[in-house]
Amino acid sequence: MTVPRGLHWDEKQLEFLDQTLLPDEARSVRTDDWRDVVAGIRRLAIRGAPAIGVAGACAVALAFRRADTREQFEDALAEIERARPTAVNLAWAVNRMRAVMRAGGDRERFEVELAREATRIAEEDARMCERIAVHGQRLIPENCRALTHCNTGALVTYGIGTATGVLRRAHERAALAHVYACETRPLGQGARLTIWELERLEIPATLLCDSAAGRLMQEGKVDLVIVGADRIAANGDTANKVGTYPLAVLARRHGIPFYVAAPSSSFDPSLGSGDEIPVEQRDPGEVRMYGGVRITVEGAAAYNPAFDITPAELISAFVREDGIHRDPATW
Amino acid sequence: MTVPRGLHWDEKQLEFLDQTLLPDEARSVRTDDWRDVVAGIRRLAIRGAPAIGVAGACAVALAFRRADTREQFEDALAEIERARPTAVNLAWAVNRMRAVMRAGGDRERFEVELAREATRIAEEDARMCERIAVHGQRLIPENCRALTHCNTGALVTYGIGTATGVLRRAHERAALAHVYACETRPLGQGARLTIWELERLEIPATLLCDSAAGRLMQEGKVDLVIVGADRIAANGDTANKVGTYPLAVLARRHGIPFYVAAPSSSFDPSLGSGDEIPVEQRDPGEVRMYGGVRITVEGAAAYNPAFDITPAELISAFVREDGIHRDPATW
Repeated sequence: MTVPRGLHWDEKQLEFLDQTLLPDEARSVRTDDWRDVVAGIRRLAIRGAPAIGVAGACAVALAFRRADTREQFEDALAEIERARPTAVNLAWAVNRMRAVMRAGGDRERFEVELAREATRIAEEDARMCERIAVHGQRLIPENCRALTHCNTGALVTYGIGTATGVLRRAHERAALAHVYACETRPLGQGARLTIWELERLEIPATLLCDSAAGRLMQEGKVDLVIVGADRIAANGDTANKVGTYPLAVLARRHGIPFYVAAPSSSFDPSLGSGDEIPVEQRDPGEVRMYGGVRITVEGAAAYNPAFDITPAELISAFVREDGIHRDPATW
Repeated sequence: MTVPRGLHWDEKQLEFLDQTLLPDEARSVRTDDWRDVVAGIRRLAIRGAPAIGVAGACAVALAFRRADTREQFEDALAEIERARPTAVNLAWAVNRMRAVMRAGGDRERFEVELAREATRIAEEDARMCERIAVHGQRLIPENCRALTHCNTGALVTYGIGTATGVLRRAHERAALAHVYACETRPLGQGARLTIWELERLEIPATLLCDSAAGRLMQEGKVDLVIVGADRIAANGDTANKVGTYPLAVLARRHGIPFYVAAPSSSFDPSLGSGDEIPVEQRDPGEVRMYGGVRITVEGAAAYNPAFDITPAELISAFVREDGIHRDPATW
């Protein structure tokens, strides 16, 4: 089995896997209408920061082809940018596409150039994943049993992913004995997506409740922890899916290395430390519900931070496309 | 609102709250048939070690009344003991009821004495809870914001509970500002039962995913952690619901006191340390499902330990019915 890519762009159409149907159904949507892409981003059929950026760039190229006037095109750009308000990658991708227009040219030339720029953005993302995976191999010992959190693979990038990409290449060279995937409440990306992806890659994998990681380490079953990142401050403090920080604290106690795999674009030098990273509180309904079923008292108050902050001192190394970094001071 | 007790015994009938229907429905069953009690224990309508012990004792008293022969009674005792194979409290309760028979007497006298012994067992449990709660007050500062895990209140004892009992009495003397209750995957006792119980007690409470406790502490919102215990070794190492140990590790990192509230009957001097406490692996299906819905790939491998072990060094104090113990060596 192979993992269907989350996205496939051929400069005429974008094909995307509807992640909302996983793990029960792997259904792809193929479209040349930018509105389908925006709708897909909105309803989380397409998710994960790098994937959203690539999809946004493709949407811009498609929108240009449909637009009769410059005004129509600008309206489309604004709508694409707004598809997910907190996804910085969307604004970044739209800006990069805008830069193509600045070079000047006629309509036909713009059509070709915009489609190609979207391809370049996608390919850069795929290359970035490969390079992270290559560098990451230095950290994976033989017969490694790795623990991971959330979902960081082919669904959220245009390539093999970040943390999952490292594990995938380790599996191919037979260095990987087992992957333990935390469920990742409240939305269960580990249970729904990572387990599905690892199964398709034929990587031996076991699901666990987020609360069981401590016991797993007590039993000596974890050789390293590897996760992705949402945003990394100048000092190395790392925001990632809530539940990451407890894994780092547990790993330190058990003397287990804790690695963050992320592209350099996730590093934000404008933030001095993790204290400056805003942590979004999400809808309490996500905590009250699971798989469409209410699991507590109706209307119960719930605390639902999207991320937590792992201090740099708990991170053994960062795996980036430009190599392994152990000390933020040397970036 | 008040919390309906999990159990009510009047020496003629046992009334029990069907915990499987919570939090959506608080339906009680009232019966004089020991078979209903056994069925209730089996299908988890009655759960929690102390509550199971009390219910087992009541079942013995009811079974004696229905039995025409000594043989019938012995068969009933065997069935009561087997209602939950791993619940040591059932065997303990049945043995204590057997001891009543050893004193000798006629059928009428046995009927009365067995019913009274069940009452004594229930009352001892309720008294134990009260004394734990009284001693525990010394540990609760003014305006305390407490974090707890799993369910340790009126549903699982014949009284106000262990850790929840401490919080309940603290609330009554207005020392408690807030309780944060961890969801407690895989079975969600925190979300289903503790949140329901705290709401009925009018204690301000907030639910969080187990993975979010680290962020909650990062935000400085937790003054202490208090949990119950399943089994405590001679050196103080404590087995409790999986997810307890990560909370203790996080609490230590944040300089937050971590307390265990448990009756002295949970202390097992025959076990030198936590290494000797067996940790049951439960059905992986519990991890794959939640609220009756499958939340991952069908048949995915899952790691599902019932407990984890919190080393004594991470426990600031034990609250028992005989007082506060900070050093296991002084028990």
